[in-house]
Amino acid sequence: MSTARDPLPLPAPLPSCAEPALADTGLLSPVRAGCPAEAATSDAACLQAMLDAEAALARVQAGLGTVPQRAARVITACARAEHFDARALAVAARAAANPVVALVRVLGEAVARTDPDAAHFVHQGSTSQDVLDTALMLVAARTAETILTDLDRTADALAALAERHRDTPMAARTLGRHAVPTTFGLKAAGWLQGVLDAAERLRRVRESGLPVQLGGAAGTLAGYLEYARSAAGLTPDAVDQYARRLPAAYAAELGLAEPATPWHTVRTPLADLAAALTLTGSALGTFAADVQLLSRTETAEVSEPATGTRGTSSAMPHKRNPALAALVRSVAYQLPGLASTLAQAAVMDDERPAGAWHAEWEPLRTALRLTGGAAHTAAELAEGLSVHADRMHANLGLTQGLVVSERLAAALSPDLGRAPAKALVSAACARAASESRPLADVLATAPELTGRHDGEALHALCDPEQYTGAARLLVDRVLARLRTTRPRDRG
Amino acid sequence: MSTARDPLPLPAPLPSCAEPALADTGLLSPVRAGCPAEAATSDAACLQAMLDAEAALARVQAGLGTVPQRAARVITACARAEHFDARALAVAARAAANPVVALVRVLGEAVARTDPDAAHFVHQGSTSQDVLDTALMLVAARTAETILTDLDRTADALAALAERHRDTPMAARTLGRHAVPTTFGLKAAGWLQGVLDAAERLRRVRESGLPVQLGGAAGTLAGYLEYARSAAGLTPDAVDQYARRLPAAYAAELGLAEPATPWHTVRTPLADLAAALTLTGSALGTFAADVQLLSRTETAEVSEPATGTRGTSSAMPHKRNPALAALVRSVAYQLPGLASTLAQAAVMDDERPAGAWHAEWEPLRTALRLTGGAAHTAAELAEGLSVHADRMHANLGLTQGLVVSERLAAALSPDLGRAPAKALVSAACARAASESRPLADVLATAPELTGRHDGEALHALCDPEQYTGAARLLVDRVLARLRTTRPRDRG
Amino acid sequence: MSTARDPLPLPAPLPSCAEPALADTGLLSPVRAGCPAEAATSDAACLQAMLDAEAALARVQAGLGTVPQRAARVITACARAEHFDARALAVAARAAANPVVALVRVLGEAVARTDPDAAHFVHQGSTSQDVLDTALMLVAARTAETILTDLDRTADALAALAERHRDTPMAARTLGRHAVPTTFGLKAAGWLQGVLDAAERLRRVRESGLPVQLGGAAGTLAGYLEYARSAAGLTPDAVDQYARRLPAAYAAELGLAEPATPWHTVRTPLADLAAALTLTGSALGTFAADVQLLSRTETAEVSEPATGTRGTSSAMPHKRNPALAALVRSVAYQLPGLASTLAQAAVMDDERPAGAWHAEWEPLRTALRLTGGAAHTAAELAEGLSVHADRMHANLGLTQGLVVSERLAAALSPDLGRAPAKALVSAACARAASESRPLADVLATAPELTGRHDGEALHALCDPEQYTGAARLLVDRVLARLRTTRPRDRG
Amino acid sequence: MSTARDPLPLPAPLPSCAEPALADTGLLSPVRAGCPAEAATSDAACLQAMLDAEAALARVQAGLGTVPQRAARVITACARAEHFDARALAVAARAAANPVVALVRVLGEAVARTDPDAAHFVHQGSTSQDVLDTALMLVAARTAETILTDLDRTADALAALAERHRDTPMAARTLGRHAVPTTFGLKAAGWLQGVLDAAERLRRVRESGLPVQLGGAAGTLAGYLEYARSAAGLTPDAVDQYARRLPAAYAAELGLAEPATPWHTVRTPLADLAAALTLTGSALGTFAADVQLLSRTETAEVSEPATGTRGTSSAMPHKRNPALAALVRSVAYQLPGLASTLAQAAVMDDERPAGAWHAEWEPLRTALRLTGGAAHTAAELAEGLSVHADRMHANLGLTQGLVVSERLAAALSPDLGRAPAKALVSAACARAASESRPLADVLATAPELTGRHDGEALHALCDPEQYTGAARLLVDRVLARLRTTRPRDRG
Repeated sequence: MSTARDPLPLPAPLPSCAEPALADTGLLSPVRAGCPAEAATSDAACLQAMLDAEAALARVQAGLGTVPQRAARVITACARAEHFDARALAVAARAAANPVVALVRVLGEAVARTDPDAAHFVHQGSTSQDVLDTALMLVAARTAETILTDLDRTADALAALAERHRDTPMAARTLGRHAVPTTFGLKAAGWLQGVLDAAERLRRVRESGLPVQLGGAAGTLAGYLEYARSAAGLTPDAVDQYARRLPAAYAAELGLAEPATPWHTVRTPLADLAAALTLTGSALGTFAADVQLLSRTETAEVSEPATGTRGTSSAMPHKRNPALAALVRSVAYQLPGLASTLAQAAVMDDERPAGAWHAEWEPLRTALRLTGGAAHTAAELAEGLSVHADRMHANLGLTQGLVVSERLAAALSPDLGRAPAKALVSAACARAASESRPLADVLATAPELTGRHDGEALHALCDPEQYTGAARLLVDRVLARLRTTRPRDRG
Repeated sequence: MSTARDPLPLPAPLPSCAEPALADTGLLSPVRAGCPAEAATSDAACLQAMLDAEAALARVQAGLGTVPQRAARVITACARAEHFDARALAVAARAAANPVVALVRVLGEAVARTDPDAAHFVHQGSTSQDVLDTALMLVAARTAETILTDLDRTADALAALAERHRDTPMAARTLGRHAVPTTFGLKAAGWLQGVLDAAERLRRVRESGLPVQLGGAAGTLAGYLEYARSAAGLTPDAVDQYARRLPAAYAAELGLAEPATPWHTVRTPLADLAAALTLTGSALGTFAADVQLLSRTETAEVSEPATGTRGTSSAMPHKRNPALAALVRSVAYQLPGLASTLAQAAVMDDERPAGAWHAEWEPLRTALRLTGGAAHTAAELAEGLSVHADRMHANLGLTQGLVVSERLAAALSPDLGRAPAKALVSAACARAASESRPLADVLATAPELTGRHDGEALHALCDPEQYTGAARLLVDRVLARLRTTRPRDRG
Repeated sequence: MSTARDPLPLPAPLPSCAEPALADTGLLSPVRAGCPAEAATSDAACLQAMLDAEAALARVQAGLGTVPQRAARVITACARAEHFDARALAVAARAAANPVVALVRVLGEAVARTDPDAAHFVHQGSTSQDVLDTALMLVAARTAETILTDLDRTADALAALAERHRDTPMAARTLGRHAVPTTFGLKAAGWLQGVLDAAERLRRVRESGLPVQLGGAAGTLAGYLEYARSAAGLTPDAVDQYARRLPAAYAAELGLAEPATPWHTVRTPLADLAAALTLTGSALGTFAADVQLLSRTETAEVSEPATGTRGTSSAMPHKRNPALAALVRSVAYQLPGLASTLAQAAVMDDERPAGAWHAEWEPLRTALRLTGGAAHTAAELAEGLSVHADRMHANLGLTQGLVVSERLAAALSPDLGRAPAKALVSAACARAASESRPLADVLATAPELTGRHDGEALHALCDPEQYTGAARLLVDRVLARLRTTRPRDRG
Repeated sequence: MSTARDPLPLPAPLPSCAEPALADTGLLSPVRAGCPAEAATSDAACLQAMLDAEAALARVQAGLGTVPQRAARVITACARAEHFDARALAVAARAAANPVVALVRVLGEAVARTDPDAAHFVHQGSTSQDVLDTALMLVAARTAETILTDLDRTADALAALAERHRDTPMAARTLGRHAVPTTFGLKAAGWLQGVLDAAERLRRVRESGLPVQLGGAAGTLAGYLEYARSAAGLTPDAVDQYARRLPAAYAAELGLAEPATPWHTVRTPLADLAAALTLTGSALGTFAADVQLLSRTETAEVSEPATGTRGTSSAMPHKRNPALAALVRSVAYQLPGLASTLAQAAVMDDERPAGAWHAEWEPLRTALRLTGGAAHTAAELAEGLSVHADRMHANLGLTQGLVVSERLAAALSPDLGRAPAKALVSAACARAASESRPLADVLATAPELTGRHDGEALHALCDPEQYTGAARLLVDRVLARLRTTRPRDRG
């Protein structure tokens, strides 16, 4: 028998998929094409994660004495996705309604080619759902890393915008119409709040919400324990200990959380994940939707990064389309439907339902991938966004001061009383609008104000740029939150 | 210059995707792996459909005299998906937020390698949405064919079951409990009704609901017409004629419907399609859900086809899992979420929105593909379903006649009056249940019935198998509907 | 015994709900407050529809000889919603998980107070689902009428806009940026297309897609037939005839469609209805979304009807909020989620599932009501919309001719060749943009064009208002469709 | 002028709604009829919450010196829902697309009837969204309390079941078929895990995730600050302080969380809430779905509480329908669609969108109410559930030992080797199944086992009740978690 450190002969790669024409590579989903989350969620990545789950199980059982160390090493060495044919497994998966049964068979064959004895220890005591659920948690954890990296990039870029434009006034719009002034800094800070909320929730899920699955055929761990008892000869007390240690060791081995109990039918981890992804989509989608509105031809207050051919049209040089924003926005449309599927499937009856579990895999993967694509794209958008303060200034003047009517009613109250102040402002606004004159000019002629508010004071009161409330303070608050969230990253 | 019949030198295939690890081939979605709808909806199929849309446009313009015939032939010859790299297009699509801009460029380059003059006629007067929408309608039409084929197979198999088991009694269950008797024939006829409803709607969409898209940059056809006017020198009247003929000819060329007007922002075709697909999923899902319930260990009235290793477990030979039903059922979970995404995206503002349009492509393709997988799988399930009439008979007896309590109350009314009849039956049922005796035996001892209903008559009244109402007639009605739907197929 | 024409003493109204504070009347859903669809879908309307279903059943059975005529008359007379306490029924419904069981009991008591014998014929042979499904179809049919009326109003108003503004040029916008010119007439025609599509589908559902439900306890009609057989003494052949006639007569009595078979578990009618309602929401939502974009302060091309205090703000007279559009738009957000619930619930297992059926009622009612509210509100919006052609003209000039760059590339091709034409236009556009000069002026100085296109011709080519393609023709097509749809309404 | 302690004359109640027939009281939604969450979410409750928001604002401004104390007292006294007509407000809400504008007007009138001066301080510096968002958070907080109470009840009842049946063996079922044994205790513990997960998340949201909204017209607080500056004469520094104190004081006054910034367009609180509610629905739905499966006629391992007429049928005494489970299950169907609407609406553009915000109110309320109804109903179900251990025992024997085939393969491995052990067990299982003999009997005749495993040992190995793995330990873990969660409640 070879020693523990023998080099292990690897199995030959299986013939690759004979039908390349069947593969999808993002043609209908450019938002994720080439983004890190795409690779992290590919069929190959999912296959590798299943193999990781199998190999880690063998290693952990070996560590606890119920699988030979050498078997665990052989299994680990064989558990490389490039040796397996994902397409063949997909087709084979139809027989058992999941890909693990076929995977265990071919993994066993691969192991047997190296070490026939080791093959018996593949998947020992386990069940398809243990492997697939654990694999999807691994995929989720790995993808969450890439999403968080891109959310952090986005947050930094938005923070820089908020800081730089802390005092850049612009019109706030409600129901599409100018309401009162705000600042672009506060607008960026609002986008940043959304991104920080999303990253916080996703980070929480990543850190403690993605558990290994380990329950055996029906969540009692019986298979695992029977091998410990009968094959490894553990005493009842030792079996009890083993039942406690196995999930903990498995979680440690894979860098995932240890669940309180098997969660075959308690799908909280998926619900938490779906909620964090959907919120991320909403936060990024809001940023994108605002970019779209602000870059409309008539408004033109921001424009997208103009690197290379992005957003341009060969025939129409005047057109710089918000292409990145469109991609990001498209994700926010798709996530709620995927999350609703996961929520419907979360009603898992019996010890494993026939259909609900099977309905989770593809929507979960798609949600991870789309969110990752949106985050990567949003980072690019935020980092390159052009802000046109001159257009903001010009647009803010469009209503000739009417955007501060709210202020005037308040400001004139001490002198005139509340009701007369409101009436005066209303009448002045109506006149300013109908005569297309600045509100300040109209007010300057109001007899009620003679001797109380001179022209200069009135113009100051009517200056939108001097009516931005606590915008500065609020921006600082959001920036402070960002610093608190990731103190080590910042100077 | 070459004559119209010269052989055209084809462009060399582009280098294929350098990242095979990024391709998805169904590992997480076995329901569609290997099914016809998968190939019909692949990235390659979508790419081909876009190329078909471009080539048909050139041919149709050639037919109407605004593009040289040779250019149309060269474009058609070059428009072969295998010459293009779908992955490279996917990544390039990020610049414009859709894959058509890049496709037009590389198609133009490919055409130019054969005939530089022809390259100018690629995509003449068109816009990305014309090509992509038309392509997706082509994909939908082609996939609908495969779905309809499988729905027809499913319908035939269910009809055979309904016919064969027209008189096989079984317990009808409401809220999970035995209610009154029914027949397995009527149950199969119910599944069949759902399938016929779905096929009818999908066929209607296929036949008249999938239009070409032809509107140009903003739905006015202006680009198409300008080329007709200035480049081809048409008179104003001729341009008007051209505006009428172009969409009709385009539709005829591609075998799609002619729309009343461009539908860039009127997404009825997608809504109709999504509705038909979702209904198909519900119909097949209901069939699958019933198979699951009827094949539960305690019930065991049906079982799935047992070909090969399907549904079996290496360690548990007693277990024949409803794997096909699980696959089908998983689709019914996923379609409503996809349809809801399409419906949200259907609020399309401006002449083309930034995000909503982009959100349609992937959910639409996934919905088509999943429905196709479900239909193919359901056909296999229906064709191979084992029906265990003995278990149906045994289960029907479980309540010892209580399933006919409804009947007895009615049957005894003429003699006893309605209220006394109900009271008598209620009391007898309670006694039968508490003493675990057949209801007929309990009733036979009721003094009220003495001399009116002898034992034999009572047993006949209490025989569940003689209380199946109009089941036979209803089965025949559904079978007649099937024959009406597809009269040529049947003898 | 009284003769058949005796006046029937009515039962006293039950005490009304003791908890008025629990009633909802639209505070959180103003889009439907006061609209016709609200009354048509209220609890009272649903209760009346259940009573209508019960009463019609009795009358139809009486007509076929299995219920005494007088009993049917008493039942009909008692079946008035105002005599029942909807709230008490709601609470009582918890015992059986549906309101019909309790309703049958109190209806029976009410009937018995008038005629004890008649009480036995209430709900004869029936089941809760027959009554509730039929009632919801009645509610749907009645609400569909109000929706269709408002869709027709909306369509007429949009048609008038399309006609009036057939030649009003405006900028078409894609991805939020000016693309090429279009007309407001074509925009209105696009909205109209959506409304006509929706109305057509809803009308089709209303006319043939809303069937009565009649199946008895488990869809075999057994209960109905047993009463015919034993109580009314029908022969087997007559029973068979009865099984055919009963559903047809029931449908005729209620003005609903006759189903091929009971559809307890085949939920096509709800799916068709949900699809039509969702499409209606999308069509109206697109109209509303466009109104919002066009009424933005910077764009100001349309504004909402300004009757009374609508959309105004006491403090800000410059602000005329698109309140109607906001209400309509809010419905398009809500319908897809409701439809997805109905689609998930459509997987109905057994002969009646425990939960899926129960999940349909409230979402269906809400979908009907919201769609009705949106249609009523949209009619008001369309009828009162102000269109500002001057702003459209001004906005169209914002890019100084760049919106016709597409045209120029085509128009100059015959003289310059396609590639040189494109290059020239691109360069000219870039220069026009960077120097803020009209494109026509820049082109006029291009040496390539000297002697070929004089200034006047160039200005004509660059005039956006002369580049509206087939807009006129397309508007006429949509108007013709409207006339075809409802020929009798028009001159 | 009166002193601060004068009794305040209250306004007369407004005339109540003239259209009682329009009120909904749960007829189509019995799951919530009469449950505490219904009252907590009624229109009256929402109206009161809006009034609470207005009154608290006045009090807080009074506390900070910008509103007279007496005005705050009058406003508070008038802010009683019973004095307002919710229906009239609902209809009036159409003008501004939200009910707050009309409410402020009638509240102002009511206040003015008591104290004309005080009327000017109603809604000072505020905006509709501040009031409505805050009100909905209040409604959410109040409803969350009732939901948590019922989740705690449910958890306690499930814990009692888990404890009592810790060692009650039953068949575990995967894909509907017997897999291996488990215990009813572990099944109940699984339900409990789901409920604890949900309660934990909902409690977290309740405690820190429901913030007041306070931003003024566009989120800058400008209106609030202008009144502080001009009307109350605060210095710039004091205004800054005021901007910090106002939200904190407002949150404290209402018992809600203080947000970092206004969240007009950052809808994280709603997303968190929707996620917690949806998860609650899934957890309770899983419990309900299992109860339905276990109470099927053929299985009959549990039955619902049989108090009164619940679940019974007048004609069919054998039928005890799982009515409570059906009600609970119906909620799990409805929540994902409502949550998806909220997620779609969470993309909030500008400083307040026209439609997305308006789409939140009704789905949020419905989600709260349905979840509350489900929790209340689930508590009743859990507290009254009958468990039939005898049926579990009988069903577990149905496969005559085949449910332990997994165990035997492991247990015989040490003696026979893994591959031979598997082969032997497979053959024995096949034979047992085909001959309908107990697996232990078949094995007892296997020559390979002679002298190694005597009949008694084999029967022990084949005894399903001795193969429940770590079920006991896992139950204890979940019970320990419950004790940790709420230590004070338990002894």
